[in-house]
Amino acid sequence: MTTTATKPRGEYAKTAKRRDDIVTAALSVFSTAGFVSASMSEIAKRAGLTLPGLRHHFASKFDLLQEVLFRRDLDANKHLEGREGIDLLRGLVEIASRDQGDSLTQMFAMLAAEATDIEHPAHDYFQGRYDLIVGTVQRALTEAAAEGTLREGHDPDRLARAYVALSDGLQLQALYRPAAFSQAELIKEFLEEFLTVPL
Amino acid sequence: MTTTATKPRGEYAKTAKRRDDIVTAALSVFSTAGFVSASMSEIAKRAGLTLPGLRHHFASKFDLLQEVLFRRDLDANKHLEGREGIDLLRGLVEIASRDQGDSLTQMFAMLAAEATDIEHPAHDYFQGRYDLIVGTVQRALTEAAAEGTLREGHDPDRLARAYVALSDGLQLQALYRPAAFSQAELIKEFLEEFLTVPL
Repeated sequence: MTTTATKPRGEYAKTAKRRDDIVTAALSVFSTAGFVSASMSEIAKRAGLTLPGLRHHFASKFDLLQEVLFRRDLDANKHLEGREGIDLLRGLVEIASRDQGDSLTQMFAMLAAEATDIEHPAHDYFQGRYDLIVGTVQRALTEAAAEGTLREGHDPDRLARAYVALSDGLQLQALYRPAAFSQAELIKEFLEEFLTVPL
Repeated sequence: MTTTATKPRGEYAKTAKRRDDIVTAALSVFSTAGFVSASMSEIAKRAGLTLPGLRHHFASKFDLLQEVLFRRDLDANKHLEGREGIDLLRGLVEIASRDQGDSLTQMFAMLAAEATDIEHPAHDYFQGRYDLIVGTVQRALTEAAAEGTLREGHDPDRLARAYVALSDGLQLQALYRPAAFSQAELIKEFLEEFLTVPL
């Protein structure tokens, strides 16, 4: 059993490694060219593959985009799952720390901007993604209100939108002036302004 | 004198109209394709011109971009010049109202994201633009502090960064969910949180 299983396992590992390389190449291309202008040939080249070789792993550019976004969201979820209220807000600040100086930030800024176009293949994905993120922050703030840690007179929905906006906008500024400020600290300060306890 | 002046005046008006049409066409192309992928031929076509006809008015795509950005900044300055402190902050909220549902918002989001790439021809422009905007808000808040209208314990520099980030981020969200909230109201609420007087 062990010997027969060895070969497939090796194959899986090889495939996983190949997929990782492709995702890395795709990230680099999406970051500068955006999604619409990115070419599968360029991604194949950077991953050291032929175009048919790339298509064997990802049939379309959109499949590849989904994989990139999926991996990113999976990582974010690690900081959020099973947490609520103030503790969930702490998870959000952890994500802000992770995002700081992250090479994916530029890609996300590009994709989020170009996908505002209703015809963009990732438009629905990004619309849904914003609803989900705003919804998560809103839930955290509503729970904080129930715990008594949200200062009175603040609307969780409006505050959640402001939080997500602040986070996106700081990422953009950090791409122009990386050394000027700490995103995570500013986000923490902003949230604490509306809370009765420190984060 | 009057008769001889008529012809040139007519020519100036015609040229101005032609330039307006070109800028409108460029805005539409930059909004969806971004700057890097935008083609001068496509802009010429939309403006009802040949490519040499377009190049007669704007020698390069970058010249055209500068005109687009210059017009936008000129309009923003009308809301800001000669104002200071709390009054300058009111001017900023006026700009947020103007930007709401503005067709240029998508273009700015696209350009600001793609120009984070250090090789982008508008990188220096956007870096300088962010410094200028953050600097203006910082000045308004510093003056507000001197007037006694900024609540104590808040740093004008950090608050200015947060303000600009909030504004950019809300514009992006509004492109996905235009009816979900009022950008200007949220921005006003955010600022008032840090002030001793209403805006």
